[in-house]
Parts: sequence; structure tokens; C-alpha cells
Amino acid sequence: MIDPGASLATLRERKPLVHSITNYVVMNETANAVLALGALPVMAHAREEMQEMVGLAGALVLNIGTLEEAWVESMLLAGAAANEHSVPVVLDPVGAGATTYRTDTAKRILDSVDVAVLRGNPGEVATLVGVEAEVRGVESIGTGGDTAELAREAARTLGLVASVTGAVDHVSDGERTVTVANGHELLASVTGTGCMSTVLTGCFLAAKADALEAAAEALAAFGVAGEDAAVGAKGPGSFHVGLYDALAALDPETLTGRAKIDA
Amino acid sequence: MIDPGASLATLRERKPLVHSITNYVVMNETANAVLALGALPVMAHAREEMQEMVGLAGALVLNIGTLEEAWVESMLLAGAAANEHSVPVVLDPVGAGATTYRTDTAKRILDSVDVAVLRGNPGEVATLVGVEAEVRGVESIGTGGDTAELAREAARTLGLVASVTGAVDHVSDGERTVTVANGHELLASVTGTGCMSTVLTGCFLAAKADALEAAAEALAAFGVAGEDAAVGAKGPGSFHVGLYDALAALDPETLTGRAKIDA
Amino acid sequence: MIDPGASLATLRERKPLVHSITNYVVMNETANAVLALGALPVMAHAREEMQEMVGLAGALVLNIGTLEEAWVESMLLAGAAANEHSVPVVLDPVGAGATTYRTDTAKRILDSVDVAVLRGNPGEVATLVGVEAEVRGVESIGTGGDTAELAREAARTLGLVASVTGAVDHVSDGERTVTVANGHELLASVTGTGCMSTVLTGCFLAAKADALEAAAEALAAFGVAGEDAAVGAKGPGSFHVGLYDALAALDPETLTGRAKIDA
Repeated sequence: MIDPGASLATLRERKPLVHSITNYVVMNETANAVLALGALPVMAHAREEMQEMVGLAGALVLNIGTLEEAWVESMLLAGAAANEHSVPVVLDPVGAGATTYRTDTAKRILDSVDVAVLRGNPGEVATLVGVEAEVRGVESIGTGGDTAELAREAARTLGLVASVTGAVDHVSDGERTVTVANGHELLASVTGTGCMSTVLTGCFLAAKADALEAAAEALAAFGVAGEDAAVGAKGPGSFHVGLYDALAALDPETLTGRAKIDA
Repeated sequence: MIDPGASLATLRERKPLVHSITNYVVMNETANAVLALGALPVMAHAREEMQEMVGLAGALVLNIGTLEEAWVESMLLAGAAANEHSVPVVLDPVGAGATTYRTDTAKRILDSVDVAVLRGNPGEVATLVGVEAEVRGVESIGTGGDTAELAREAARTLGLVASVTGAVDHVSDGERTVTVANGHELLASVTGTGCMSTVLTGCFLAAKADALEAAAEALAAFGVAGEDAAVGAKGPGSFHVGLYDALAALDPETLTGRAKIDA
Repeated sequence: MIDPGASLATLRERKPLVHSITNYVVMNETANAVLALGALPVMAHAREEMQEMVGLAGALVLNIGTLEEAWVESMLLAGAAANEHSVPVVLDPVGAGATTYRTDTAKRILDSVDVAVLRGNPGEVATLVGVEAEVRGVESIGTGGDTAELAREAARTLGLVASVTGAVDHVSDGERTVTVANGHELLASVTGTGCMSTVLTGCFLAAKADALEAAAEALAAFGVAGEDAAVGAKGPGSFHVGLYDALAALDPETLTGRAKIDA
């Protein structure tokens, strides 16, 4: 049953370690988002500690936002270790479609790692299922297509849960497709909010086994926090600060009722 | 004609991609500054994607704040690609003068890349034109010299637009020298505001062909945002947050009138 | 004599350069903390500039939060240069105990570099003196043991000043053990506040020769800033912002009186 409040309560009780190999731009911001929500963040990319760190984690988050070969190798190592330890893996294919290297790297990870949830914007996800898409750099600029159908197709083609975010989010496992309508337009004015939604997806996966439900609940929780942060925000700076306050203040009792999840 | 408001309006309409290869300290902050102003930031340093990413960009920003050899090579590759695609390049020689490696790297980039605008503090720019300067680390501590003359000399010697920032900024192409008197002293209390002025220079270069005017307009816009952010700020933390709010709130209609640009 | 206000006044007058080789997650945040306090931050990790940059510094801060081999080598080089130039070194063994690689790297640095102050949480410090400890990732989760005794033992075993932080901090040189009771629980809700306390320890070491006293004074100053930032904070985001405001607003005149240092 989809119940973000219950999962949040579980998460805060368990305080799972969420291990990210992510891009330089959002390291602090995603660590603070994890901590504000109630889990424990760790960033580690050295090959020497991949096995051990992944073994401690409740979820592994791979994010290709600032690629280079040594980091890709660490992601593949970490992904293999996560699969071995049954640690769920979330992939954020930042900028897939913008350059061949990003597209190829995302595909390389998808080919060799059993990814539980792929969290991306429509252009990135469309690229990975072979649909034409306009991708300019790494900021989402929307697509005109049917995002629900895109999520369903990505889930079926890639054999995972596809979490495609935008003004309205669509999460699909190929059979069920869920719509999440929480959020605020100011989320698009701060860099790394997509990456935050990815790492929070990792948090919820560490608290709930059903990947489709965990992914949708994470987006609802983040969207509700965005709605709260927008109240009184004067622009992207104060909204960004308010986002951490709002994540920490999320109330499991009321979260489920505020979630706009349409299954 | 110098008209920062008109350029800002153009920028927000075009939403150019501004590609940075920059230091770890300011990646998030400069990305958010670009996004708040109204352009699209991207950070990418892998050799594998330099050609493609630069080809998508409206401007390339090179910043040597946390150097290492592999990154320098990526900067040189990106610079060559930018020159080939006629993408304007901005260089921020962070810490030139503090160590030989920084000075040499800045010179190496200037030697092999056609740089449109060099944006630095007086000590850094003086170092690159062979003038004695006191540089302690990477924070500007001012110089006693004639900054307008320094900008003019740097522009002539290096064959580019020199944008030398401080309490008052001086921008010169060797012929014309423009003074920009916007800003606030709190800008010196937050790390990376120099880097922000560099990346915003990239944004304006993506909106306007005249490099001297684009550089001056960028400093005026950033300075006006600094003035707005200072209102109600309680210190460097709240000022920093307010800076993004202020950049996003910059009004093209009033910006030109508020700009203190003396040509 | 322990007098954080006097040391802060000295620091602001000298404006020493504090050189960090630190983790990606906290680079911006620790640089801003140094700047807000009144010193000059610099981040540099290239082997090519280690000797020169360390030579300019008033203190060197080594932080192993996001390890990889090339960075470890730079830390060892920088540590050797610092010892040669009599620049005090602070080590933050982030995540020691979580993985063998982190534990071994911290020990490798301790073996080859003369470290003035080791600043860590109880689990990390316990690991380095061979005491069993629970360490989950990099966020402190507390230990049940006697932290004052742990600090004393670490200081004696490792031949340095051990600064063990938590709800109450204990700083020891093996003979004297000082308790610092400033701070606020919100400090645990923001990632990198431990790293900030480390870098601020570097600042105070650059202002005062007595390492035990400098370390305790730094924690008191940071704790007082935390207390001030908590006033009016709505959660971790606004607290984080307020921390920089509070560091900048620290008043040397009243700081000493507000410090809860029990020698």
C-alpha cells in the first residue's frame, strides 16, 4: 500500500546509510537532503572501499552528473557489490542525451548493474529507451510527449522502475503506473533538485521493499517539502534553504494525506 | 551600446547553456547563480565529452581554483573546441600569483586558447602581466595600484578583454576602459563570489557579441544583485542566500538605470 | 591561558591563510566558515603546488571524507611540507572505522605526519586508538563510553592533541583534559559541521601556539556560533545559513565570557 508517512516513520527509526557516488555539484546538497529527511548520507568513490561501504548501506545512489572514467569504474564496482548484497540501486542518468559519453555511460551501468529505480527527466529517460528527445545540458527543459507512456515503456524495456519527473511525475514498473502531482515550480529554479529527488528515492528504498511504491512515495515527500518551502520563499535562494527545513519538518502523520499520488 | 537590462532580457529568452570547468568549491554556487540569472548551467570535465558539450554551449568558463593536471588538459581541450565553434571563453585565473603552478597554468591556457574575457582580481591579473602583486591564497586582498591602468595593460598585453574586479571594477579591451561601481562589501565575505562574477560574465557573453560590454554588464548586474541581497542581510550566510533571490529578481526594465557603468 | 576572544581578535588581525585538502562535500561550506570567522581559506590538492601553498599557510587541514589515492598522496606531501615549515596540521579522520581504507589512511597520515590536533567524533577516534566502536558511514552516532578518557588515551597513544566532539567536547594533550560544553543539537542536523569544527581548529592554531588551548577555543567559538544560529532557526537549512552569520558576528569581547570551557 502506498503510504509515504508510514515509510518516512520507518526510515527515521532505522536511519539507514545511503551511499552516493554522485556529481561534485550536488554532493553537499544531497547529503543535507538525506540528513534532513532522517537517514545517514555517505559519499565514497574510492575503489578500495567500495565493497565495505556498500555493505553498510541501505541503498546505493549512482549519479553521472560530472563524469570521468575512474568514477564510472567505481560506480560499476559499487553497483556489482550492491547487487551482491541485495542493496537497492538508484540511477540518475544526468545529461544522458546531451553527450554520447553520458548516454553510453548510463547504458553501460544499466547493462551491468541490476538497477531498482531509474530516476530522470523526460529527455534523459527518452534517450535511454531510444526515443528522440531534446536535452540541453543537464537541466530539464520538458518534452511534449506522453510522460506516463514514456515511464511505462522505460520500465518495460529496461526491466526496472522508471521514475520520470517533471511538473507531474510518473512512476512505472511496466504494469502499474503511478502519478505524483506534488511539488512547486520553484524546484526547477535550484540546481540539483532532480538529484535530491534521486537520493531521497534511495532513502525510501532503504525503508520499503516495493520499489514502485518507494519511488512514488519519495517524490510525494519531496514534493510536499517543496510546497512547504515555497511558502514565504522570496526566490531560489530562500526556497533552497527552506527545502531542508521542510524536509526535516515533514510529519509522517500528515504526509500520507497530503500526498497527491494517483495509482 | 551598454544596456545590461536588454542583454538580460535576451539571455532569459535564449536560455543559453553555459559550460563550466571550474573548481570544486564553487560548483554548486556558480550553477545556481547561472540558473537564477536565467541561463542553463552545465559542469562537465571528461575529455570524452568535451567536444560535444562545448558544441552545445553559448559560453565556456574556465576556472583554475582547484587545479590538477587532468583538469588542465580538459580545459585546454575545451578551449580549443570552443575556439573552433566560436563559443566565447572566459578565464578565471584563481590564485595566479599564489603558486607557480597556478600562474603557469593560467599562462598556458592564455597561450593556447583564444580567451574573450579574463576575469580576475587585481593581484591575479597583475601577476599575468608581469606586475609585482601580493596574492595570498585565492581571496582578493586588494592592491594599491591603479586598477584601471592594470586592466588596460592586461587587455593590450594579452589581447583580450580584462575584467578586473574589486570595490570598483575596471573592464578594458585596451582601447575603451569602463568602470563599474555597483556591488556591496558583503560580496567579499562569501567565498566564490568572484567565481560567480566570472560565470555570469559567461552568461552575458552568450547573449551579446561585444565582449567589453557583455563583461561590464555582467558585473553591473551582479553588483546590483549584491546591493539588493545586502538589504536585510544579517551577515555572510543570509547575504549569500539573498544573492540568488536577487539574481532571479533582477528586472531588465530597471537594471539598466541602476547600473553604475562609466564608459 | 584559555581565552577564545583574544585568539579570535588575533586571528582577525592576522588573517592567516588556512590551507585545506578536504572532501568534496564540504569544500564550499568550510571555506565559508573560515572566511566568516575572519581568516582566508584556500583549497589546493595538486602535487605541483603543495610545497608553495603550504609555505604560505598559517595552518594545514587534512580531511579524508572523500578519499582516493592521489588525494592521499597530496595529503602526505602537504603534511611533510607543513612539518618542514612548522605549519600546524589538523587531521579529521572522517569515517575511520567505517571502512578499512579510511582507517588505514588515517593511520598512514598519523604515522608519517606530525599532527598537532586530531579532531574527530568518538567512533573515529576510538578506532584510531584501537577501541571497539560503532561507526556508520560518516555521521557521528555517539558512543556510550567515557569520551574524556578516550581523548586522554588518544592524546597519549598518538602523541598529539585529541579533540573529540559530541554533545560535549573533550580536548586533551594527555596531561590536561578540557571540556567544552557549547553548541546546539541542530549542529548534528547539517552535514559537514564536524568538518567545520576541524577547519576552525586550524584557524585558531594559526593564531595561537598552544594546540590544546587553540583546539578548545575553536570548539567554544564554533559552539557559541551554533547557539546563536539556533535562535530563530526553523530547521537545518535556516540554521546552516545562520551559522555563517553567527561566525561573522562573533564578538571577541563577549566570546570568552560565553565559552563554557572547563579546564
